[in-house]
Amino acid sequence: MAAEPEHSVHIKSLELERLVFFSDAVFAIAITLLVLDLRAPERTGLDPAATLGAGLAHLAPKIVSFVMSFWVVGLYWFVHHRIFRHIRRWDEGLIWLNLLLLFWVAFLPFPVSVMGSFGDQRLAVVFYAGTLLMMGLSHLLLWRHASRDNRLLDPDFDPLEHRRIWSRSAVPPIVALAVIVLAFIVPKPGMAAFGFALIWPLQRILAPRAPRAAGRVRGTAR
Amino acid sequence: MAAEPEHSVHIKSLELERLVFFSDAVFAIAITLLVLDLRAPERTGLDPAATLGAGLAHLAPKIVSFVMSFWVVGLYWFVHHRIFRHIRRWDEGLIWLNLLLLFWVAFLPFPVSVMGSFGDQRLAVVFYAGTLLMMGLSHLLLWRHASRDNRLLDPDFDPLEHRRIWSRSAVPPIVALAVIVLAFIVPKPGMAAFGFALIWPLQRILAPRAPRAAGRVRGTAR
Amino acid sequence: MAAEPEHSVHIKSLELERLVFFSDAVFAIAITLLVLDLRAPERTGLDPAATLGAGLAHLAPKIVSFVMSFWVVGLYWFVHHRIFRHIRRWDEGLIWLNLLLLFWVAFLPFPVSVMGSFGDQRLAVVFYAGTLLMMGLSHLLLWRHASRDNRLLDPDFDPLEHRRIWSRSAVPPIVALAVIVLAFIVPKPGMAAFGFALIWPLQRILAPRAPRAAGRVRGTAR
Amino acid sequence: MAAEPEHSVHIKSLELERLVFFSDAVFAIAITLLVLDLRAPERTGLDPAATLGAGLAHLAPKIVSFVMSFWVVGLYWFVHHRIFRHIRRWDEGLIWLNLLLLFWVAFLPFPVSVMGSFGDQRLAVVFYAGTLLMMGLSHLLLWRHASRDNRLLDPDFDPLEHRRIWSRSAVPPIVALAVIVLAFIVPKPGMAAFGFALIWPLQRILAPRAPRAAGRVRGTAR
Repeated sequence: MAAEPEHSVHIKSLELERLVFFSDAVFAIAITLLVLDLRAPERTGLDPAATLGAGLAHLAPKIVSFVMSFWVVGLYWFVHHRIFRHIRRWDEGLIWLNLLLLFWVAFLPFPVSVMGSFGDQRLAVVFYAGTLLMMGLSHLLLWRHASRDNRLLDPDFDPLEHRRIWSRSAVPPIVALAVIVLAFIVPKPGMAAFGFALIWPLQRILAPRAPRAAGRVRGTAR
Repeated sequence: MAAEPEHSVHIKSLELERLVFFSDAVFAIAITLLVLDLRAPERTGLDPAATLGAGLAHLAPKIVSFVMSFWVVGLYWFVHHRIFRHIRRWDEGLIWLNLLLLFWVAFLPFPVSVMGSFGDQRLAVVFYAGTLLMMGLSHLLLWRHASRDNRLLDPDFDPLEHRRIWSRSAVPPIVALAVIVLAFIVPKPGMAAFGFALIWPLQRILAPRAPRAAGRVRGTAR
Repeated sequence: MAAEPEHSVHIKSLELERLVFFSDAVFAIAITLLVLDLRAPERTGLDPAATLGAGLAHLAPKIVSFVMSFWVVGLYWFVHHRIFRHIRRWDEGLIWLNLLLLFWVAFLPFPVSVMGSFGDQRLAVVFYAGTLLMMGLSHLLLWRHASRDNRLLDPDFDPLEHRRIWSRSAVPPIVALAVIVLAFIVPKPGMAAFGFALIWPLQRILAPRAPRAAGRVRGTAR
Repeated sequence: MAAEPEHSVHIKSLELERLVFFSDAVFAIAITLLVLDLRAPERTGLDPAATLGAGLAHLAPKIVSFVMSFWVVGLYWFVHHRIFRHIRRWDEGLIWLNLLLLFWVAFLPFPVSVMGSFGDQRLAVVFYAGTLLMMGLSHLLLWRHASRDNRLLDPDFDPLEHRRIWSRSAVPPIVALAVIVLAFIVPKPGMAAFGFALIWPLQRILAPRAPRAAGRVRGTAR
C-alpha cells in the first residue's frame, strides 16, 4: 500500500472527501446557527430609537458569546483541517471517532445559548468549557487513532509535523480545563471564559519549530 | 461498461458526487438542526443560579432525545455512506428513492421535537420510531434498487459485502419496529425508545464474518 | 474549445463544481429548514396524551404543506441537476441567473410557512404558487441562457435531450400558473394547491420519447 | 513551484477545495437563514383573510430587508468566487483572513434581523452597513494577502484581472461607507440603505475594460 497507483489514490480521495465534507458541513452549520440567538429586540411602540439602543446593549453578553464561540469553533475546524490533511486511509474507528467529534460540534449551540443568557453563572461556564473540553479530547482521540503506527497516515509523514499537531491539538482542551478550574476560583466565574483567548498565543509558543516553519507557503498537501 | 476508460470514471464520479453531496448536506443539516430544540432557559430575575440549574434539569428529556437522535442519524449516514461506496452508475429511480430517504431525514427534527416534550407518551414514541422505521425501509429499497442484478454497482462487487450491507441495513428498521411493539407492551412507553441502543450490538452480532473483516484498514473504495 | 486537453477539463470542473455545490447547499438547506415550522405542541399540564393527539391533529395542515413542498423542491433540484449535467462552460450571466433561481429557493420557506397557517386562504395559495412559478421561470431563463446556440453546453449535446429538458422544465411553472388560476375558480382555494401533484404525471406524459429512453442506466454524464 | 507536476496540482486542489467548500457552506447557510425572520403571521380567529393581508403588509420591511440582503450576500459570494479562482497556494494567513470574512457573513443575519424591525432607525442602518463594510474590508485584506508579490496566485496571473478584482472588491465597502454617511445626512435614515443598489451599476462603470472583456464565455479557470 506504500506506493499506490494514481487511480487508487483518486478513488480513495473520494471516500475520505465525503467524510471530510460531511464534517465541514456540520462545522459550517454549527458555526452559522450560533447567530440564531441574536435576534432584533421586540419593537415596542413608544421610542424605537431608545428600544433599539437598550435592546442591543442588553444583547451584549450574547454578542460576546457569539464572537468567542465563532473563533473557537473556527480554530477547531482548522485543527480538524490540519489532521485530515495527513490522513490517507480510513477504517470504521475513524468514522465513529469523527462522529464523536461532530457530536460535540453539533451540541455546541446549546451551551453557547446558555452562556449568552447565564454567562455570569459558574454552572454555565463549566457547561460551556466542558463541551469545548470534550471537543478537544475527541480531536486527540481521533489523531491518536489515525497516527498510531502511522496506520492511516501518509507513509512518508513528517515526524515534526506529528509533534506540531499534538501540541496544537492539546492546547484547546488544556485551556478548557483551566477555564473550568478558574470558574471555581475567580470571584466572577464569567471572567474565566475569557481564558479561551489564550489558545492562540499558547499555540504559537508551544509549537515545535523548524527552520522552514516560518512563513511557509504551501502549494501541496504536505 | 466493465472496463471504463479513466476519463469516463471521472465524469461519472461528478454526477454521483452531486447526489451524494446533496444527501450529505441534508444529513448534516438535519443532524445539526436537532440542537435548535435546546435553548437556554428563560432568565428570570430572582436567583439565576437556581433558574439555570432547574432549567437544565427540566431540559434533560430533550437532551436525551438529542443525544439518541444524533447517533441514530449518524448511524444511518454511515449506512448511506456504505451503500453509495459501491454504487457506480445511477438512474432516475435511484434519485427518487434517495429523495424518499432524505424526506425522512429532513422530517426527523419534528418527531425528535415531539419526543423531547412528550417522550413519556406512547403516541410520541410510535411517531418517532415510525419515522426511523420509514427511514430504514427507504434505505432497504434504495439498496435493493441499486443491487438487483448488480445494476448500479461496481461490476466486481464482493457478494460477502452485499450480505453485510443487507444485515447492517436491516437492523435499524427491525429495531424501530421492535420499539413500536414495545411501546404498546411496557408500562412506561418512554422506556421503549432506549431500545434503539440495541442497534450497535445487533449490527456487530449479525454481521457476516470473513477472515479479513477484522480490523480492516482501507485505502481504496472497495 | 471542442477538444479540450484533459487538464483544462479538470480545472473547469472545479469552477462549475463550486457553482453547483453552492446551489446544492442552498437547495439542501431550504428543503431542511421547511421542517422548522413543525414543532412539538406546547405541553400543558393536565392530560399530555390528549394534548399531543390534538396538537398533532392541529399541525396536520402544516405537515401537508411540508410534505408537498419537500417534493416540489426535490423536483426542482432534480431539474437543476439535469440542466447542469450538460453545462460545460460558464459566464457571468449564468451565475446571476442561477442566483435568481436560488433567491426563490431560499425565499420558499416563507410562503410554505404562510401555507401552513393560512392554507385555506386564496392569498396564501397565490403567494405560494406564485413563488413556485417564479422558481420555474428562473429555471427556464437559466436553461435558455445556457442552451442558446449551445453556448455553455457540451459541444456534442443531444437535441432530443434538449427538448426533454424544455418539456420537463416547463411543466412545473405551467402547473403553478394553473394552481393560481384554480385558486380563483374553485370554492375552496386550499384545494387548488393539490394541483401540484399533477407535475409528476404530466412530466411523464409530455416527455419526448426515444427508443433508448426507457429504463436507462447511466454510467457517464452524457 | 512554477511548474508543478500534475499530481501535485491535484492534491493542492483538494486542500484549497476544502477551504472554498467551507466558505461556500457558510455563505449558503447564512443566505438561507435570512428567511427565518419571515414567518407566517399569527392566525387569529375572526377574519383569516384580513389577518393574512394585514400580516403580509406588516412584514413588508422584513421582506425588503431579506431581498436586499440576499443579493448583497450573493454579490459578496461572487467576489469571493472571483478571488479564489486565481488562488493556487495557501498559507495560514489565508485561512485566518478567510475566517475573518466568514465571521461577518455568519454574523450578518443579526443586523438583517435588526434592519427588518428597525429599518427606519439610524442605529440599525449604521449597524447593518457597518457589518457589510467589515465584510468588504475583509475581502480586500484577503485579496491583498493573496496577491502581494503574486504569492498565492497562479504564476501567469493576468495583471488586468488583478485591477478588475481590486475595483470590484472595493465598490461594496465604499458603498457601505457612503450608506453610513448618508444615514446621518438624509432625514429618513432608512432610505440610505437603498444606496446598496448602487453596487451593481458602479461595478460596471468602474471595471477596467479590455477588448476581450465583453461577453466572455469561460471554459477554463483563467
